[in-house]
Amino acid sequence: ARVPLRYLPAMTWVYNFGAGNADGRAEMKNLLGGKGANLAEMASIGLPVPPGFTLTTEVCTHYYQNGCQYPAQLKEQVSKALALVETRTGRKFGDATNPLLVSVRSGARASMPGMMDTVLNLGLNNTTAEALAKQSGDRRFAFDSYRRFVQMYSDVVLGIELGNFEKLLERAKAKRGVKQDHELLPEDLEQLVKDYKACVYLELGEEFPEEPHQQLWGAVGAVFGSWMNQRAKTYRKLHDIPEEWGTAVNVQAMVFGNMGNDCATGVAFTRNPSNGAKDFYGEFLVNAQGEDVVAGIRTPQELTIKARKSHGSDLPSLEEVMPSIFQELETVRHQLENHYTDMQDIEFTIQQGKLYMLQTRTGKRTAHAALQIAVDMASEGLISKSQALMRLKPDLIDQLLHPTLDPKAKKTVIAKGLPASPGAAAGKVVFTADEAVTRSENGEKVILVRVETSPDDIHGLHAAEGVLTTRGGMTSHAAVVARGMGRPCVAGAGEVKVNYASASFEVGDVVVKEGQLVTIDGVTGEVMLGEVPTVPPQLSGSFGTIMAWADEFRTMQVRANAETPTDARQAKEFGCEGIGLVRTEHMFFEGGRIVAMRQMILAADKAERQSALNKLLAMQREDITELFKIMDGLPVTVRLLDPPLHEFIPHTEAEMGLVAKAAGVPLDRVRRRASELQEANPMLGHRGCRLAITYPEICEMQARAIFEAAAEVGRSAKKTPVAEVMVPLVSTLEELVQLKKVIEDTAKQVQKEQGVNFRYHVGTMVELPRAALQAGKLAEQAEFFSFGTNDLTQTTYGLSRDDAGSFLPEYKAKGIVETDPFVSLDQEGVGELIKIAVERGRGKRAGMKMGICGEHGGDPASIEFCEKTGLDYVSCSPFRVPIARLAAAQAAL
Amino acid sequence: ARVPLRYLPAMTWVYNFGAGNADGRAEMKNLLGGKGANLAEMASIGLPVPPGFTLTTEVCTHYYQNGCQYPAQLKEQVSKALALVETRTGRKFGDATNPLLVSVRSGARASMPGMMDTVLNLGLNNTTAEALAKQSGDRRFAFDSYRRFVQMYSDVVLGIELGNFEKLLERAKAKRGVKQDHELLPEDLEQLVKDYKACVYLELGEEFPEEPHQQLWGAVGAVFGSWMNQRAKTYRKLHDIPEEWGTAVNVQAMVFGNMGNDCATGVAFTRNPSNGAKDFYGEFLVNAQGEDVVAGIRTPQELTIKARKSHGSDLPSLEEVMPSIFQELETVRHQLENHYTDMQDIEFTIQQGKLYMLQTRTGKRTAHAALQIAVDMASEGLISKSQALMRLKPDLIDQLLHPTLDPKAKKTVIAKGLPASPGAAAGKVVFTADEAVTRSENGEKVILVRVETSPDDIHGLHAAEGVLTTRGGMTSHAAVVARGMGRPCVAGAGEVKVNYASASFEVGDVVVKEGQLVTIDGVTGEVMLGEVPTVPPQLSGSFGTIMAWADEFRTMQVRANAETPTDARQAKEFGCEGIGLVRTEHMFFEGGRIVAMRQMILAADKAERQSALNKLLAMQREDITELFKIMDGLPVTVRLLDPPLHEFIPHTEAEMGLVAKAAGVPLDRVRRRASELQEANPMLGHRGCRLAITYPEICEMQARAIFEAAAEVGRSAKKTPVAEVMVPLVSTLEELVQLKKVIEDTAKQVQKEQGVNFRYHVGTMVELPRAALQAGKLAEQAEFFSFGTNDLTQTTYGLSRDDAGSFLPEYKAKGIVETDPFVSLDQEGVGELIKIAVERGRGKRAGMKMGICGEHGGDPASIEFCEKTGLDYVSCSPFRVPIARLAAAQAAL
Ligand SMILES: [Mg+2]
Ligand SMILES: [Mg+2]
Repeated sequence: ARVPLRYLPAMTWVYNFGAGNADGRAEMKNLLGGKGANLAEMASIGLPVPPGFTLTTEVCTHYYQNGCQYPAQLKEQVSKALALVETRTGRKFGDATNPLLVSVRSGARASMPGMMDTVLNLGLNNTTAEALAKQSGDRRFAFDSYRRFVQMYSDVVLGIELGNFEKLLERAKAKRGVKQDHELLPEDLEQLVKDYKACVYLELGEEFPEEPHQQLWGAVGAVFGSWMNQRAKTYRKLHDIPEEWGTAVNVQAMVFGNMGNDCATGVAFTRNPSNGAKDFYGEFLVNAQGEDVVAGIRTPQELTIKARKSHGSDLPSLEEVMPSIFQELETVRHQLENHYTDMQDIEFTIQQGKLYMLQTRTGKRTAHAALQIAVDMASEGLISKSQALMRLKPDLIDQLLHPTLDPKAKKTVIAKGLPASPGAAAGKVVFTADEAVTRSENGEKVILVRVETSPDDIHGLHAAEGVLTTRGGMTSHAAVVARGMGRPCVAGAGEVKVNYASASFEVGDVVVKEGQLVTIDGVTGEVMLGEVPTVPPQLSGSFGTIMAWADEFRTMQVRANAETPTDARQAKEFGCEGIGLVRTEHMFFEGGRIVAMRQMILAADKAERQSALNKLLAMQREDITELFKIMDGLPVTVRLLDPPLHEFIPHTEAEMGLVAKAAGVPLDRVRRRASELQEANPMLGHRGCRLAITYPEICEMQARAIFEAAAEVGRSAKKTPVAEVMVPLVSTLEELVQLKKVIEDTAKQVQKEQGVNFRYHVGTMVELPRAALQAGKLAEQAEFFSFGTNDLTQTTYGLSRDDAGSFLPEYKAKGIVETDPFVSLDQEGVGELIKIAVERGRGKRAGMKMGICGEHGGDPASIEFCEKTGLDYVSCSPFRVPIARLAAAQAAL
Repeated sequence: ARVPLRYLPAMTWVYNFGAGNADGRAEMKNLLGGKGANLAEMASIGLPVPPGFTLTTEVCTHYYQNGCQYPAQLKEQVSKALALVETRTGRKFGDATNPLLVSVRSGARASMPGMMDTVLNLGLNNTTAEALAKQSGDRRFAFDSYRRFVQMYSDVVLGIELGNFEKLLERAKAKRGVKQDHELLPEDLEQLVKDYKACVYLELGEEFPEEPHQQLWGAVGAVFGSWMNQRAKTYRKLHDIPEEWGTAVNVQAMVFGNMGNDCATGVAFTRNPSNGAKDFYGEFLVNAQGEDVVAGIRTPQELTIKARKSHGSDLPSLEEVMPSIFQELETVRHQLENHYTDMQDIEFTIQQGKLYMLQTRTGKRTAHAALQIAVDMASEGLISKSQALMRLKPDLIDQLLHPTLDPKAKKTVIAKGLPASPGAAAGKVVFTADEAVTRSENGEKVILVRVETSPDDIHGLHAAEGVLTTRGGMTSHAAVVARGMGRPCVAGAGEVKVNYASASFEVGDVVVKEGQLVTIDGVTGEVMLGEVPTVPPQLSGSFGTIMAWADEFRTMQVRANAETPTDARQAKEFGCEGIGLVRTEHMFFEGGRIVAMRQMILAADKAERQSALNKLLAMQREDITELFKIMDGLPVTVRLLDPPLHEFIPHTEAEMGLVAKAAGVPLDRVRRRASELQEANPMLGHRGCRLAITYPEICEMQARAIFEAAAEVGRSAKKTPVAEVMVPLVSTLEELVQLKKVIEDTAKQVQKEQGVNFRYHVGTMVELPRAALQAGKLAEQAEFFSFGTNDLTQTTYGLSRDDAGSFLPEYKAKGIVETDPFVSLDQEGVGELIKIAVERGRGKRAGMKMGICGEHGGDPASIEFCEKTGLDYVSCSPFRVPIARLAAAQAAL
């Protein structure tokens, strides 16, 4: 659709724009910088952009490569460009009656702190200021502009401390006996200009440049000079921006929205950025400058009659005040949306009845608006479905699934932690899981506050509205479980000091006791006093539309990690295509089950253990039956017991006493067993399939539970359940050989006993570097692989998820890691091991099914990696299923 | 030197040997089995072997592949072979005057429990027994042989319970009124044969076979049958021996050493197996059978006059009793050594003045003898130097470096643990490191007994003669440190229950209190009551010789892991070529240093920390100076602080109180800091270079200590020190970039301050899977790699060294792992990562120096892997340096 760029000779250092025409285009950001390219684009599509020109980034590069010398042809090219601006505006630079004033702005490829930014009103001097006064009929306006110019130029170009000018301004106001700048009289401002210039002479030993061309070259030199100042250098280094990129300089004719009542200035969004409705949304001020809109001293007016009415404003809208200009702006609005095919955030100025467009850029919007706009634009035919999908950042979807803080509500933030699980929740503070359950059973809403959580706290997490921890990161136990349950979580809020003994916490001077109300926001990580109102999630029609579109495009399947019927149902509602990870150990923490589990662990011999296992068998079978029913023929991957047994035994004497009583064994045995099971590094200890190897009877019980459930459901359900038995933490083939035998023997046994056949597969987690390397061998036995990227990240990095919180923030700050590798998959390191495993596994077993479970399964960047690497599915917590569906579609596109 | 094997038709099932001739050779073990090949070899070099023949393993295979049918030609070939034996012996099978008797023995490639072993005296029946009586002139001898034959045949061939025969024998003795078998009269024995046969008939329903050929085929069938019995099958399965291998059967003419005083039987070693001296060493009995020598009822006589004199025996030697036979045996001795080029363990029988060789095999020997014999044989020109080197198992060398238990001493073993560090030591039991120091300063020898040790106990380990722990494996802290120091250690003696409170330990009923004497043997893992005498290590001339030869051949360098001057000197004496690993943290545990270290950790801010660091700087500089001096121009690789800070803080309230006092900070701060530093998985926590990243001032202090030491030593020493600074636990390039900068800046600073240049290199540990994968990038910054295979094994396997002890033994028992991967490098998994790192590292930096430090550096199999993988050096604990030198030579050969 684009006109090919016209041929430009190599030595063109200056690009013109304006009057419906431009030498440049939006794509030429590298040459013209972001701002220059954007101005060129607007001009080229015929929008009323004040004319101007851009000195290219090549000028900057040339300048530094040649001992701070400009290219030979530059002076002449600038002269010509300036002449063109003069022609286009009908004004002359430095003219005594009709002077041209310009702005000078830097413009690198990306905006960069530390660089000189803007000089406005350049071209003013004693002569042109008088002309401006006469032309505008507003002496105050002219000399205020002049005063501001001298101050800005002296600051950014001449490097004189702003304090000097502020002192003079204050003195002038005192002398006149006024408080506000705008109360100064024109003569005061005229005197101020003189004082400012005198100050420059004193500071610099040179007169302030009167000559406009001298001003212009001074400003241009300042922009190029600022490319090499220390702040810019440091910023470039931190952000990996090469020095050779250089910056461009934009020179543009000034327009004024403050030259009378036929002038105005405003900002607008082409659609509502808050809810996405197709309404022109913005505000303006008559006879004002851009900064007046921002300053908020005057009340801005609405653009449309509709908006005025809906806001109940008594100030007339632009549609009423300047109907023809409004129509022109409406046209521009549609033109921009058609051109950019996205909602735009624009700035405009009306000078003496003429509309000028100063800026357009893609508008920021809420998650709701992003969704609505994408769906609407695709329906309008402005973009394709796939473009609509690509527009939506998957993480935005997360916000749509949870209640959020009412944006209008007041809040008293007392601490900030990591935004560990989205959503906002308010409730009474409790410090134990049991208290959470008790109070929630009484109908109270509670927030569970813990230093950190353990599997023992699961029932409390379930009962609570949200959880706050003072230790641990984005992938700590609390964070992972909360995300899985869709509960808001703020994790690792280090300032919060919990005192369990007094059932209270402190943050600085604030003390919060059990039962007091707090609110947490899992999107920002904020902890607030009292109950801050929230708004519920709105899974509007657009949400369903976008999900349906995502399913059209994606090739990877999306499964869920779920153990409870609640989670499984939730995941199914969110469109999961099976369960990719049932963490069977979670099933043992509920109610009386933990007692049977502990009896198993504390058993003195195999017979005692077997009797405890029999109790667990019934419970486990029941749970898995329910999951098979809910999944209705979709695959369910059940992982064998994974954590070290130690996690199931409490560690205080009192708690151990309770366990001894409940399990009917002497306290001494509990104490001894707890100490035996204690490990220096439990993450690298006796866990995963290592437990099943040393206690094959546990593996057998679990296999039996799965297969008996499959047999039972298979008999009655229309769709046969698909059982996938998954062996965790395998490091060598022989482990899998031995356990697969136990599982298969059990399957045969159950089939014989029940007289039913059922479908099942035996696979393995690939979650240790050695497993990834040995994947070719493991594939001899494993029918599928599931990458456990949490453990794989821990071992590949030698980094414990639970302990990384103490230094990972500093690692990020120092630029050692870009993102937390537990949040977004480390594609270079961990990713290479996954690639190796995929290649070797499929090399042995063609087309072998492979997926990923664990936190990364719900992370968009990681999902993209999975697609590239050829995985068949991702499995994530229920509340991330929609996100994964979208991310998978984007990865496939 | 070998005559080519003569052509044998494919269908030869039987191989003859004897009379200076044989169809087979030693190399034909697969066809003839071990025993058959060996007999053929002896016969073929002209030794007086009783003639016989071998039914090949192919007969066995054929038998089982054809429904238990022998090959068609077998009968005929056996007939012919038997005829040849008859010719060669001048006897006839079943003959009434000059009968041939034979033995029938199985002979697989490797000896195999569960298989039928031997039937002697086959061919005896009523007729031949009478002939034997007449020929020998000893009726008792003949019928005793007959009785034994019937019993043996009935047992192993006919499968009749031995108990039946024992009962009959007891009854015969009772009847005669005697106690011993040999007191029975010839007629008693004759009757016994009849009774035995009657018993066989009753049990079997068939007569005992009288006909010698029937006996022979019965025995042959029994051998082949036993190949498939359950015990043999299980053994094969466990040891991966294929069923197709089959077994051979050896049939050989009997000779008798018990037919009169011109008969004898004996065993001998061609050299002294105890000290390796080139003396003919053995014993014999006149008129006796092999089993009489073993039974120990009669006192055996020496072979040589020299031996008789040195043992003060009054029984005449063989040299005196049968001088010409002795000379013949001397000739055989030299012939065998020349032929096999190794010390031989032989069996011989003299029958009526004629010498027969029944067996030769490579003789078992002590470590000392192995060394002496290898060196002597190479000096004698019997073998080459490289052969001598290849003969010595590197682990034998370990025994030579430590005191060993006096083999003649009596010992009361009360418990057994893992043989964690070689050597034997006796001392008084102590339970704390401090007590060990106090008593050792008083001149007492002590054995430190702990549940497990921690870095806090280092001074105690130093002070003790040896250490006993009740928990932990071969690579536990105690084991590693003890090996490093050359202290004997028995680890993980689980039966020993330590009670610190009462300062005692219990094993079953035995209670040992502090101050009681015990002895530990780190070679066997035994714990003994009282002081068992030991013999000191003898680093004789041969030791030096073999080490010098090893150095001629090896290509890899051998360095030592050492921090203390004692260790460094020891390592230098043992021939190390530099220090490959200085664990700087060990330097902080001594004496007052721990206080400064703790002050550093407990510092509230950077200034406080800096002041503590300054104290540590002086100490560290002093230590490193000493190491540079000792190493005298050899490289010294200093690793930056590695363990989590937490390890330096004690955890009981009382101990924390002491620290608070010593460090001059409130107890509360110690408590808080200890809790802050507590980690769930310290091995994967805030340690290694992660500490240096968060506290760059520690890295700077350590770099400064190293460089100031280098500058100081460089000024005075003839050889410039070579400092290698090593960054531990790197996982990503940026860590190395930032720390290298700190190190290099410090180096420049010190060079400027001191006005000296010194040589230094900055390298990194490769000890995380990610580091191995990223080796190409790391090599941009690292000048050398050192593989930390302890951590690399932990992370590749996801297996904590400290926790693996609880299930690794079971993993071995179940055949899941062959060897402890912390003892011998896992070449498939961890090894692949090392190969990747070598390839990528050198791909980036050609010829990059690479080595291995950590426990595997002293393990021969791992050293071989290092050689194959192209590493430049291995670094190990001082006491393993000689082992590594030898292993490196073997790897290079
Ligand atoms: Mg896992
Ligand atoms: Mg290490």
